[in-house]
Formats: sequence, structure tokens, C-alpha cells
Amino acid sequence: MKAVVLNAEWAPRDGVKIDAYNAERRWAVQANLVYRGAQATFTEVPDPGEPGPRELILAVGACGICGSDIHMFESDDDGYMLLPYHLKTPVVTGHEFSGKVVAVGKDVREFKVGDLVTTEEIQWCGECTACRGGYWNQCSYIEDLGFTIDGGFAEYVRVHAKYCWSLNDLLERYGDERTALEVGSMSEPTSVAYEGMFTRAGGFLPGSAVAVFGAGPIGLCAVALAKAGGASKIFCVEPIAERRAIAEKLGATHGVDPTAVDAVDLVDEETKGFGVAMAVECSGNFPAVMRTIEQVLGVGGKVSVVGMDGRPVSINFIDHQLKAASTYGTVGHCGSWDFPNVIRLMASGQIDMHHAITARYPLAELVDAMEESKARTDGKTLIKPVLD
Amino acid sequence: MKAVVLNAEWAPRDGVKIDAYNAERRWAVQANLVYRGAQATFTEVPDPGEPGPRELILAVGACGICGSDIHMFESDDDGYMLLPYHLKTPVVTGHEFSGKVVAVGKDVREFKVGDLVTTEEIQWCGECTACRGGYWNQCSYIEDLGFTIDGGFAEYVRVHAKYCWSLNDLLERYGDERTALEVGSMSEPTSVAYEGMFTRAGGFLPGSAVAVFGAGPIGLCAVALAKAGGASKIFCVEPIAERRAIAEKLGATHGVDPTAVDAVDLVDEETKGFGVAMAVECSGNFPAVMRTIEQVLGVGGKVSVVGMDGRPVSINFIDHQLKAASTYGTVGHCGSWDFPNVIRLMASGQIDMHHAITARYPLAELVDAMEESKARTDGKTLIKPVLD
Repeated sequence: MKAVVLNAEWAPRDGVKIDAYNAERRWAVQANLVYRGAQATFTEVPDPGEPGPRELILAVGACGICGSDIHMFESDDDGYMLLPYHLKTPVVTGHEFSGKVVAVGKDVREFKVGDLVTTEEIQWCGECTACRGGYWNQCSYIEDLGFTIDGGFAEYVRVHAKYCWSLNDLLERYGDERTALEVGSMSEPTSVAYEGMFTRAGGFLPGSAVAVFGAGPIGLCAVALAKAGGASKIFCVEPIAERRAIAEKLGATHGVDPTAVDAVDLVDEETKGFGVAMAVECSGNFPAVMRTIEQVLGVGGKVSVVGMDGRPVSINFIDHQLKAASTYGTVGHCGSWDFPNVIRLMASGQIDMHHAITARYPLAELVDAMEESKARTDGKTLIKPVLD
Repeated sequence: MKAVVLNAEWAPRDGVKIDAYNAERRWAVQANLVYRGAQATFTEVPDPGEPGPRELILAVGACGICGSDIHMFESDDDGYMLLPYHLKTPVVTGHEFSGKVVAVGKDVREFKVGDLVTTEEIQWCGECTACRGGYWNQCSYIEDLGFTIDGGFAEYVRVHAKYCWSLNDLLERYGDERTALEVGSMSEPTSVAYEGMFTRAGGFLPGSAVAVFGAGPIGLCAVALAKAGGASKIFCVEPIAERRAIAEKLGATHGVDPTAVDAVDLVDEETKGFGVAMAVECSGNFPAVMRTIEQVLGVGGKVSVVGMDGRPVSINFIDHQLKAASTYGTVGHCGSWDFPNVIRLMASGQIDMHHAITARYPLAELVDAMEESKARTDGKTLIKPVLD
């Protein structure tokens, strides 16, 4: 089958300690500390073959390009890739995907050939201490589709049934497989926002106001979810006009350009002093937004930190204290029914993530698509490997 | 009656904006921005007189010296007091007190003459937007006993019944009024820790480990509450040996001297890698402890920020994200049954805050007691105005 394979050089930086087990298998806890010289090749690779007893083989319908995919091909001054997440090369990347079941293992009862499905990216073991506490995203023996094992920038993928969720209801909603699979491929990024806002932070009371910082794909998902959760006003703070426009399509009542408008004054006025019940950080640029977040928060407000930023940031806890505010660190999208709830919101029409998809490329053009994606100022770019 | 009256000069710093209403009544939102030259006088003041329909008159049994009381008499380089909280002078200070009811208003049905009671310090209105949302500690029209209205460093205090809670059950527990009133005066600081750990942060699962940073009076309360809440191991990180000794009396399994022991390694080893389910910040020195807190937190861990520190502090949110950690800002002790639950823990013997009381002075010696208290390295200092 055709796939895009990532290769990179395993060259741990001076002073970085790698345990023997990970060194042996070239498994990086943080790729930016050990991998450099990334190269992607559109090539022929072996078919996934027969599924194991509990596995599915999917023909990939759509696979989104994530910021993480791009960070693999961006390097710092020392030539190391920017990605601060897990990686093991060579690997077929791509982790935001949907597909059609073309084969099922003998012990799979949840799915049948022809079903439309999507899959969690995080391959949690279900057996370690973290998993046994309900913290699947913190799995001690984690593997990651599209990072440490072969993912969705390929015609076919092999995946364990326990990570898959049905998208059949989206077919009914959208009327055609193509759209159902495209929207379904947004389940993963939408579930990342869902985990942060609802599972970890516990949501907000319907009727209250919400602010979303950053309108990249995850921020757009957060806006849609804020609307679905009953926010009466949704402020989306984002400097790029095209992204604000998509955010408004998805439910933002106020697209706020922070270079032109004082978000603090606006929120104060528009909420009649209540402030926001939840601020969702999706910019990944903490130093730029944290002070504003502290100021727009209302009494009892929550901060859901979904964007990733390895840099330390200065926090004024006295403001959090006087407001009885709380802050939730979040990563991932597994467990707690994040995926099925997101899919139900999609199927019911409460969120329509189709608005966030703004570009489509065939698999053979992935490398070019990533280049163009870096320069894009709007929504999500999808790769369409097989089904279109 | 006898009381200690605080006077200070109203002299707003250059550039500090005070609204007309507050300027007129010399009511400081932050005393450190407007008040300087604090002086305390042990003097004769008018008796509180007859109680209003819903008021009580209390003969004060014991009133603790809080760090805030001391901060009124400490000044910065410009001569302004250090206290960053509300203040209106002249005022009788003292807000951690207990007393015996000597008169009740005609519409008071909850209390009778002779009852032992304590009172919330925060005089919430119950009518503003914050109070109507259940955020009494964030009351928009707040007044504060011992800060903006006359408090407990006096023989008698007038207080509204709605802020009072009965201590009669402590009489049964301790067998004498003197001890019941002393322990009862600890209800306020204990409720501050309770609000942070349980009401705001939602507590921790019994059996898990807890770390308390700082073993001043509030930290000691947090240690006792951690034990009452079922923590299996309680790490109290505190450089002063006398305080660690009290913490151990109150339930700390590990008094940790951070100048001699690596708290991160110790917690990792003693919890077999689980880390702590809750870290309670009670040092008021955020820059000194936040990095350690990030490291000792376990997966799903909570940080309850109880200590006050106006300085910004650097936070590594990536650590909070990878651990699914959450952080709770907290101030105050009102509402949500903080006080009655604390008093029930005292009455049942689940916490014994008597261990935290290490010095007692008569009212006439308050000024000296504060001087000595500054130098103290152990527990709580009480003033005993009338009943002893």
C-alpha cells in the first residue's frame, strides 16, 4: 500500500538521559531531545495484513494535519525537531483520522466490515497504575498512533478495536460517506478540547460566558463545544481574521482581535461584570494570554489549559485566589467517553465541525500540503488517502 | 470596656485610584496602598451597648494573632503597612475569636445567653451577585471583623447572629470553658484551610498522600485536616524544627526540612511513585515552593493555594498538563458549612487544634505579644481578653 513514512536520525543531545529500554527501541519520550533531520517519503510499504483477533483494518477516509505533524519537520538552531512529544521512527505519521472497516478480527463484536469508525490516538494499555485510576491519557506504557506506531497518512491502518468508535451516525446526519468521514476525522481534536473543558475542568453552567484563546483547529473545536454546552456569550480571542470568521460560524458571539480590542474591557462590558465562567487556552502561547485570562475570569471561573507550551509562564495567584478560580492542566482525549460524546454532538448537529475544514489534499501530496499548511491562516487541512 | 485600637494615617500612594465612596469612609481595598504609620493603643472604648434584633454581644474568650494582624504593624521602605487586605481605621483588630454570649437581640433564635460561639471574620452581605452565586468569600459589599469593623482584641464584640456558630459541643469534648474557647478560636484559621482543601479543591480520596507546604498556623490546620480526611501519608515541608514537631503531633507522618532533605525524592519513594493527591500551599512564599509542588504532584493531583503572596510566580503548565493536575485559588472561610464542619471535627476529636496553641497573653499585653509573636518559631499565640 501507499503511505508517507517519516524517518529521522536518532542522536540524543548531550546530557539527555535515555533509559536502556527506550534507547534500544529508539523510542523518544520527547522527540525534540533526540531526533533530528526529519524526512518524509511517499512510498510503498507492506499492507497491514490480516487483523489480530481484536483488531480492525481500516481504509483511511480522511486524516487531519495536526500542528504536531508539522513540528516534526520544523527544527531548532541545533537541527532538532520541535516536537516535544513521543516519537519512534521510522513511522507512518497521522493521528486524526477516520476510515471504513475492511476487515475485522475473529473476536471483534463491536464492529463489522463497512462500518465507518474513528480511533483514539493514544494507545493506552488499560493495565498500568495510571490507567487503573481512570487516567488513560497518562498511561505509563503509552503508544501513540502516528507517533510511535503507524498512523493514518496511509491507505490502510491496523488498530485495536478498543480504541475505535463508530461514526455510522454521521452518515445519517451528513448523507454521504465522504462528509461523514471528513467530519469524523475531527473527532480527535474535538475530543482534546472536550477532555479539557468538560472531563478535566468539569464544564461550566449553561447561560454563562466562555472565552477561547486561539482559533487554531483546537480552539475552533472549543468554540463549538462552548456553544453546545450552553454558553450565552463566547469570546474567541484570535489575531487572524480568517480564523475569527470560522470561529463565528461555529458559535463565537465575539471574535476578538487582541491587537485592536481590549479583551478585558469588552468581556467586562458584555458580561455586565460577571466575567467568563471558563477560559479555554488553545493558543499554545501562554506568555501572550495568561494575564488576559486572569483578568477576564469571573468569580468561580475555571481555566482549562489545552494548548501546549513548554515554557514557564508567570501567574498571579492572588487574582485566582480572590476570584476562587481554578486551573486545569489537560492533555489527550481518551477515556471518560470523550469520543462518543463528541460524536453524539456531531451526529445531533449540536456542533458542525465541517465548518472548520478548509483544505483537502490526496495522500501523495502530503509533504506539499504540510508546507502549505504552515502558511495557512484558516482551518483544518485534511489528507484523503483512499476514500473520496 | 478595654480594647486595643489600631490607628493609621490615610495617605494614598501616588497614582493609586480610590473611588469616592471608599475615600469618604477611608475604606482601603488594599491597606498597603494607602495606610501607613500604624499604632496600637490599649485603651478604654465604649461598650457595644444593646444588641440589634439579630445581633449577639460576646464576651471574648480567646482571640488568635494572625499574620495579618502583624502585617499591619510591619512597613515597607516607604513606611506603608505590609497588609495587602481590606482595612478601615480606627478599628479594633482581631478576627480569630471565640466568646460567650452575654446578650441576644429579640429576633435571635439560634443562640441564648451563656452559649459559647465563634464567628466568621468575613461579613458577607448575602445579597450581592457573588453571595447569590454561593461565593460569600467574594462578597461585593464585604466588611471584615477586625479589619473594617471592630473585632476581637476587646473585652466585648457585637456581631450579627448569621455569622456565628455554636461551640457548645467543644465544652463537652474538652470539659472546661477555657479550653473550649481556646480551641474554638482556632475555628477561623482551620476553616481557611478547610475551604481551600475541601470546599474549593474538592478534597482527595482517602488513602492517598497529601503534602502541606509551610507549618505556620494555617499549615498546621491543613495537616490536621489532611489526617481527618483520611490521608495515608502527610508530608509537611517546613524549615523550622519546632513547627515540624507540632505538625507531627497533628498528624504529619513526615516532617520534611527542605534545607536538608530532597522532598521530591522522599515523596516519590514513600508513595511508591504515586506522588501526592493534594499539595496544600500554606507558606505564602510561592517562588520557594511551586517547583517542588509541581514535582511531588501525582497523576490527577490537586494544588490548593491557601497561602497569600502578591508576587507573580513562574509555573510550568506542561507538568500540570501531563499529570492532569488542577490548581485552586482560595481565600476565606465562609459558606459551604466550612465552620460547622470544622467544629464537628473538633468536637469529635478527629482534629485537636489545641496542640497548635503555644502562647497566651492577656489583652493588655497584645502589643508586646505581637512583637514576640513575630519572633516565635512555633504555633498560634492567643490573646485572652475576658474569660480565663
